[in-house]
Amino acid sequence: MPKDLLRNARLSKDVLPIVENFLSSMKDDVKIAFYDVLGTQVHNIMLIEQGIVKKEEGMRILGELQAIKQEIIENSIKYDMSFEDIHPFIEDRVIQKIGIEIGGKLHSGRSRNDQVVLDIKLKIRDDIIFLASKLLQLGDLFLSLAEKYEATICPLYTHTQRAQIGSFSHYFLSYATELLRHLSRLWDCLNRTNSNPLGAGAVGGTSFPIDRQRTTDLLGFDTIQVNSLDAVSSRDYTLELISVYSILAIFISRIAEDLVLWSSGEFKFIIFDDTFSSVSSALPQKKNPDTAELLRAGSAEIIGKMLATFMIQKSLCSGYNRDFQQIKPLIWDSQEKLSSCLDILIGIISSFKINDKNMESATLESNLIALDIAEYLVISYGISFRMAHSIIGTLVQQNGQNLTNSKEIQKIAKEKFNLSLQINQQELDRFRNPRYCLEMRKSLGNPSQKQQENMIQDLKRDFSQVKEKFDAKNKYIKACYEKINDIVVQYIQG
Amino acid sequence: MPKDLLRNARLSKDVLPIVENFLSSMKDDVKIAFYDVLGTQVHNIMLIEQGIVKKEEGMRILGELQAIKQEIIENSIKYDMSFEDIHPFIEDRVIQKIGIEIGGKLHSGRSRNDQVVLDIKLKIRDDIIFLASKLLQLGDLFLSLAEKYEATICPLYTHTQRAQIGSFSHYFLSYATELLRHLSRLWDCLNRTNSNPLGAGAVGGTSFPIDRQRTTDLLGFDTIQVNSLDAVSSRDYTLELISVYSILAIFISRIAEDLVLWSSGEFKFIIFDDTFSSVSSALPQKKNPDTAELLRAGSAEIIGKMLATFMIQKSLCSGYNRDFQQIKPLIWDSQEKLSSCLDILIGIISSFKINDKNMESATLESNLIALDIAEYLVISYGISFRMAHSIIGTLVQQNGQNLTNSKEIQKIAKEKFNLSLQINQQELDRFRNPRYCLEMRKSLGNPSQKQQENMIQDLKRDFSQVKEKFDAKNKYIKACYEKINDIVVQYIQG
Amino acid sequence: MPKDLLRNARLSKDVLPIVENFLSSMKDDVKIAFYDVLGTQVHNIMLIEQGIVKKEEGMRILGELQAIKQEIIENSIKYDMSFEDIHPFIEDRVIQKIGIEIGGKLHSGRSRNDQVVLDIKLKIRDDIIFLASKLLQLGDLFLSLAEKYEATICPLYTHTQRAQIGSFSHYFLSYATELLRHLSRLWDCLNRTNSNPLGAGAVGGTSFPIDRQRTTDLLGFDTIQVNSLDAVSSRDYTLELISVYSILAIFISRIAEDLVLWSSGEFKFIIFDDTFSSVSSALPQKKNPDTAELLRAGSAEIIGKMLATFMIQKSLCSGYNRDFQQIKPLIWDSQEKLSSCLDILIGIISSFKINDKNMESATLESNLIALDIAEYLVISYGISFRMAHSIIGTLVQQNGQNLTNSKEIQKIAKEKFNLSLQINQQELDRFRNPRYCLEMRKSLGNPSQKQQENMIQDLKRDFSQVKEKFDAKNKYIKACYEKINDIVVQYIQG
Amino acid sequence: MPKDLLRNARLSKDVLPIVENFLSSMKDDVKIAFYDVLGTQVHNIMLIEQGIVKKEEGMRILGELQAIKQEIIENSIKYDMSFEDIHPFIEDRVIQKIGIEIGGKLHSGRSRNDQVVLDIKLKIRDDIIFLASKLLQLGDLFLSLAEKYEATICPLYTHTQRAQIGSFSHYFLSYATELLRHLSRLWDCLNRTNSNPLGAGAVGGTSFPIDRQRTTDLLGFDTIQVNSLDAVSSRDYTLELISVYSILAIFISRIAEDLVLWSSGEFKFIIFDDTFSSVSSALPQKKNPDTAELLRAGSAEIIGKMLATFMIQKSLCSGYNRDFQQIKPLIWDSQEKLSSCLDILIGIISSFKINDKNMESATLESNLIALDIAEYLVISYGISFRMAHSIIGTLVQQNGQNLTNSKEIQKIAKEKFNLSLQINQQELDRFRNPRYCLEMRKSLGNPSQKQQENMIQDLKRDFSQVKEKFDAKNKYIKACYEKINDIVVQYIQG
Repeated sequence: MPKDLLRNARLSKDVLPIVENFLSSMKDDVKIAFYDVLGTQVHNIMLIEQGIVKKEEGMRILGELQAIKQEIIENSIKYDMSFEDIHPFIEDRVIQKIGIEIGGKLHSGRSRNDQVVLDIKLKIRDDIIFLASKLLQLGDLFLSLAEKYEATICPLYTHTQRAQIGSFSHYFLSYATELLRHLSRLWDCLNRTNSNPLGAGAVGGTSFPIDRQRTTDLLGFDTIQVNSLDAVSSRDYTLELISVYSILAIFISRIAEDLVLWSSGEFKFIIFDDTFSSVSSALPQKKNPDTAELLRAGSAEIIGKMLATFMIQKSLCSGYNRDFQQIKPLIWDSQEKLSSCLDILIGIISSFKINDKNMESATLESNLIALDIAEYLVISYGISFRMAHSIIGTLVQQNGQNLTNSKEIQKIAKEKFNLSLQINQQELDRFRNPRYCLEMRKSLGNPSQKQQENMIQDLKRDFSQVKEKFDAKNKYIKACYEKINDIVVQYIQG
Repeated sequence: MPKDLLRNARLSKDVLPIVENFLSSMKDDVKIAFYDVLGTQVHNIMLIEQGIVKKEEGMRILGELQAIKQEIIENSIKYDMSFEDIHPFIEDRVIQKIGIEIGGKLHSGRSRNDQVVLDIKLKIRDDIIFLASKLLQLGDLFLSLAEKYEATICPLYTHTQRAQIGSFSHYFLSYATELLRHLSRLWDCLNRTNSNPLGAGAVGGTSFPIDRQRTTDLLGFDTIQVNSLDAVSSRDYTLELISVYSILAIFISRIAEDLVLWSSGEFKFIIFDDTFSSVSSALPQKKNPDTAELLRAGSAEIIGKMLATFMIQKSLCSGYNRDFQQIKPLIWDSQEKLSSCLDILIGIISSFKINDKNMESATLESNLIALDIAEYLVISYGISFRMAHSIIGTLVQQNGQNLTNSKEIQKIAKEKFNLSLQINQQELDRFRNPRYCLEMRKSLGNPSQKQQENMIQDLKRDFSQVKEKFDAKNKYIKACYEKINDIVVQYIQG
Repeated sequence: MPKDLLRNARLSKDVLPIVENFLSSMKDDVKIAFYDVLGTQVHNIMLIEQGIVKKEEGMRILGELQAIKQEIIENSIKYDMSFEDIHPFIEDRVIQKIGIEIGGKLHSGRSRNDQVVLDIKLKIRDDIIFLASKLLQLGDLFLSLAEKYEATICPLYTHTQRAQIGSFSHYFLSYATELLRHLSRLWDCLNRTNSNPLGAGAVGGTSFPIDRQRTTDLLGFDTIQVNSLDAVSSRDYTLELISVYSILAIFISRIAEDLVLWSSGEFKFIIFDDTFSSVSSALPQKKNPDTAELLRAGSAEIIGKMLATFMIQKSLCSGYNRDFQQIKPLIWDSQEKLSSCLDILIGIISSFKINDKNMESATLESNLIALDIAEYLVISYGISFRMAHSIIGTLVQQNGQNLTNSKEIQKIAKEKFNLSLQINQQELDRFRNPRYCLEMRKSLGNPSQKQQENMIQDLKRDFSQVKEKFDAKNKYIKACYEKINDIVVQYIQG
Repeated sequence: MPKDLLRNARLSKDVLPIVENFLSSMKDDVKIAFYDVLGTQVHNIMLIEQGIVKKEEGMRILGELQAIKQEIIENSIKYDMSFEDIHPFIEDRVIQKIGIEIGGKLHSGRSRNDQVVLDIKLKIRDDIIFLASKLLQLGDLFLSLAEKYEATICPLYTHTQRAQIGSFSHYFLSYATELLRHLSRLWDCLNRTNSNPLGAGAVGGTSFPIDRQRTTDLLGFDTIQVNSLDAVSSRDYTLELISVYSILAIFISRIAEDLVLWSSGEFKFIIFDDTFSSVSSALPQKKNPDTAELLRAGSAEIIGKMLATFMIQKSLCSGYNRDFQQIKPLIWDSQEKLSSCLDILIGIISSFKINDKNMESATLESNLIALDIAEYLVISYGISFRMAHSIIGTLVQQNGQNLTNSKEIQKIAKEKFNLSLQINQQELDRFRNPRYCLEMRKSLGNPSQKQQENMIQDLKRDFSQVKEKFDAKNKYIKACYEKINDIVVQYIQG
């Protein structure tokens, strides 16, 4: 048994249960079991091709690995949690079945140090593609909500204070726009991670004549991670990955905060669907946005894991260090947390109802037209913007709510700047209609319906291009996996 | 005076000194003063071209801005630190000189909310290019050290334990390899940041007929950051930037830890140059690697700032929030810290001396040839790797240091696996020479001299390509700035 | 000159400006200059008393130190920023004035390693007392606001949703209550820090016959930090301090968030005083709670520094490490940030105005009396709470706002639980008055006026006790400082 | 069924499985199940005593709760993981057994909001006491190692460079000294947490005439957490707890780093026992200190959780927020991680072997006697310390290793300071014996054997006092629990 073999040759004592439990990463490694077997198959195909393992031996090794892979896929495998990690567990299975004379060859020319990096990278590749598909789904939803609400008047905020008249769709388009950048970061991270560490060995390579290009091609990697010390020492790709996750988590926290505020008794802009709400054990009237609150907390959880990932690597010297082991649960738990947060977010925003009357009346209550009026004064009466801004600011201070009183404006303009303005009261009155204010907006990307429509079209095109890229990458990887399977089957069948 | 104008129209009371001091970002904004004026010039060129500002008015605005820009370049400008931030300070200067009737027009169609994002992005663009140039310099140094030490035998470590025979150059090549990924991340971050927020206004755009494509082209941005809510609400680019910085900081901490260990009395691999060493106030014999220790601490400082940058944004709702202001010093201080860390790192490693005898003797003292021997057994005697590993492991446990004793190996092989091996003692003896062991390594990217040479060639090519990209981008931006200057000068000269 | 002496004896080369700049902590050390001189005086008083320094030599050393101390107090000292830190700067000043034969004795039996810990601890002691005095001031303010608003009806929230009828004072009493725990943490931290490291030397003590108890008594420490390795290696007190700061920062962020929400156009509970508000450069109507937003951001800044303080120490081995140097600015900047945040917080809440009508009407609009009604049903009609909760919950779902309709309640009770209730409509109607609901509350610590009054009395007593403790400690330390001064003056005067 | 009752009265739709899964904290709440039932029993004893629940009803409620408590103790309970949290799960069990008419009374006058705080505080109290017992065990071990190694010569380090001659025991005494501060922090945290939130209700108390003092006394709390808003809004005690954990984690990382270095091939001070070592899958000779590396990583994991705990609370407004839920797994996982780290640390250091020859020879190789010699020059020849320091520093630079050459010293003293010294070569030669150097040390707390013995005595006394305090607290709490049980049994038996 390699478990004992591995340990007992060098060390004289058995491992204690508390040490075994402390050291073992089996619980986390279950998530890379498939990749471990896949990588081991590819490694052994190469060993056979290079003559390091004889074909008839390789057949048996690949055959047993194939059986294990099948059990993993069918979820019927029984893991022995007392192993230190997944790698000796798999090797042990093979050796127990086909003996150490042949089975003992499967690890030739590699080490757990390059092997675990391989497994992690294969999983990251698939994890990114999986998350991207959720984000693309979320993007579609944002765009459909934007289409639905492009004529729904709603305040835009700065400093959590009502700032300008806008449309409810503008929120969803701003989310969608940022979402594209998150997808772009995931794509870059995927490509930077997609290089093959296998063949680095423990830290300084091997004297077996292995072919690193072959395993690279079979596994669908873009490049070889050439330098053996780099391959086992560096975990920068985990830092990039979890940073990208964390940036996304902050984005989700922003939307969650919007949702919490909008659903409060003070805003009353949206009503959560009952399925995404919770009740109180004591207060009979309460219907709470707990799901959104937990999205908000989720950002803290993921960022905590990011910091642990950075901190683990701080002050570590070159070479593989066992500390690295603890990175695995951090990045995988983060991915799962993000994934469930995205499901919940999609659920909340695809089911809430809006109260468009409250949204629109919120734009009327405050002086959200102040800038529109000030700009009107500049455009129609030629005064400088800073004067107009000052006049309207003074009007707000003195008079409070009514900004469409031409006489007041004229009076302040006279007092403050000795300007004699003859303002058209009828034109001014039009600004009482929020739709009019929106239509007047001229800049690209503003919340007017016309701009909303343009942005929706552009974003649809952008999302569709991103989707194509990810789909193509996914297809390519899956094709590589199938090809590996075909080769294995051919060997097994002789 | 706009400072008072801005404030006093809307608010009835003056600001208190303690509030002014608490709110003001002037100290940090000095670093974007140049960009602020540049952006304001471009905005006003566009306002003139769009007919929002008359040409003769624009001349005067641009003229005064040009004077300010010159003072900033010459570092002769006097900042009034009582302003809330740089934007009203600049506007105030212009208005004081040319009056509110004309000077009051310069802010038409924009807000501090889009303006500050513009300034930050312009600075980030230049900051990244600056850091990249330092990293490229560091890369050159790594490669030249690799060339210098490619025949210097040195242990490679795992778990801070000697693991395999390697070469000292292998460290520098592993550093250089990772460095390329850092450069690649900076490049991606640069490109993702390089879109123009100007024209988003406060949050919902403007009714002035501004031309956002024009300011985008003039400032050398790749794209427009179209959605106005996205432009003022999102700070994901700051999160990406400081994440990339932090990943780089962890890399530096790894090298620093290597340097601290190598220079210790126990390793004695390198001797710090006196210029990069410190003494003790009490212990006369001490010569300490303080510079490397502070590089290590630097990673903690930068990652602390990263956390603050993330945490500031946690749970903020959509729209501009004043909290964002505090992001500026975090990313700028991090950049300066990184920059000085890189200078020091370059200084340390370009000046230390090595003790190659200690390095080589460290490879002889331990059993670093264990894997080489085990692989030799596999290759020459056809036993499985797991058996060979077990035999040599047992030998180490029983016998300690001498692994080239064929009789012992044969005895263990017999006892453990009933194998009858006839091992060639002469061949075995060759492994006592670390250079022989290295030559035997066959895998791509191993520490043998041949592989070192190949990697050096490849990395030189890679670095040169990266350098070209950054240089071209830098040239393009500088050309844009000059073109802006030319346009301004033409206007001023009428 | 000791600067050169210190360096040039052991090292052959001068320090480079960039290295000097990188290594030097002079900028931060200005803040401990006073403590450094004080500690050096005390150390030398002890050296004289122990006969290690002759009295006539000690006179001159103490005299020059006294001159420096005076300059520091008067802020007339000129710091040479090219020194590595404050310690050699002070020593150098003395030696330059009185020569190396005598001045060179002042550092006998100590090292910068124990000296810097001493300086840090002396400063922390005073910093804590200073912060505590601000917190005590804040506590007074909370209590006076509680007295002012104890009859002001206001909703209490859970999940950012209106939950129960309460009083506005209840917020301030909850703040005051938590504040006492922050003060208690500061007190514990002060006491745990208050032990004397001086005499630990570089790391292993000294062969000079120093008297550590004497310096401990003179400086007013509670105990000696006996173990010399502990004294120079441990920085756990900095971790505790910055944790306590950070916990306080989170508390401030909570109040800041309350203030931002209450001042929003949706809540309209409070109106910020103009002095604590900001305007918009574009939107003429805006009056923003920027001060509160920056309080919120401040928590992120302090917690970022906390992370850096922890991370610096991660994976450092025993002994003094230069990395520790970077802890100083982190804890001192945090203290200053906290201090200014407290000033601003005190300013905001001592100047805002409230809109009590909005607060009270917010309690009427929602179904905040649901629990009061449910409990009434239990108390008056003997049904179980879970039944009553379910009946009222159903009523809310079916009927929305009106919960005081006895017939509806009876109908649901019948349908749901087959209960035949005869509810007194008149009694039910009383619950429409929020004051009645509050009066009905019976539990200790609830928001009714009676409980508010009780809590105010108790908290006044608690704050007064805390204040006494801190005042006594402060007086004792100041008395020690004066006594040191007296001794010094006696020596100088011979 | 209360699960449905709770939800279905107010909300019209069932919860979706993905939402249930996202919201539910059942997995974490299993750890407070015992405390939840205990708290509910105490609450109901009080309800009976106050006449809110009739005695005969209370009997049945307490009886069913007792059955559940028994199942929890025996670990035979079946948790229904579809509940949102533990509280309705328990209530549901009771109601299912004894009906809603009676069982529905058990939640009268409280809410999940005060209930969950109660459960958390009860668990924290026990968790702290449990951790303290491990730390006390560790302290004993440190002291016994100190006794064992008080005569073992070993270098002390600064800057990871050998600094002074010391004793191996000095490390363990420095650890023990710091450990006392960790215990002190835990004690303070325990006392600050030990106040009773029960009776705060949802946020604003209750109209039931509950007796909060009674539940406080029964549960062994020191005080009532009076203010109802404070009781449900504040989580500062969780921040303090996890900060204290994190400070402890940094301490463990320091010891772990010491262990990793000491066990390296370069230091060779200690040899890990095989039970606490790991092997390599590729390198047959390797025996790695993986356990110590994972201790080091553990600090990063715990501090990551600390940051999440802080970050969750950032920018939350007053009142209960669902975000709080996610704090539970953070503090409990940290406690379990710390606990297992302490077990492993105890295991490693109670089983390693030392190589005292390597330790002692490390003190001879370097110039660790430089300070001893310099101080000797001061004491015996009356020159100033700074001169002596400079002379010996120059000697090191010029001459390297031999510092006991009186002629060289005299020559440098003459050249540098024109001093004519007549140094006693015989006395100087004594410093070649490290034991002599140690004996010469005079300061309190130095590594000489005499001081080691003193410190051991003092620390034994200190640890014994701490142990008494924690034991007494533990006994008191357990007695309270038994008294609760007695009261319950009396009620059940009528």
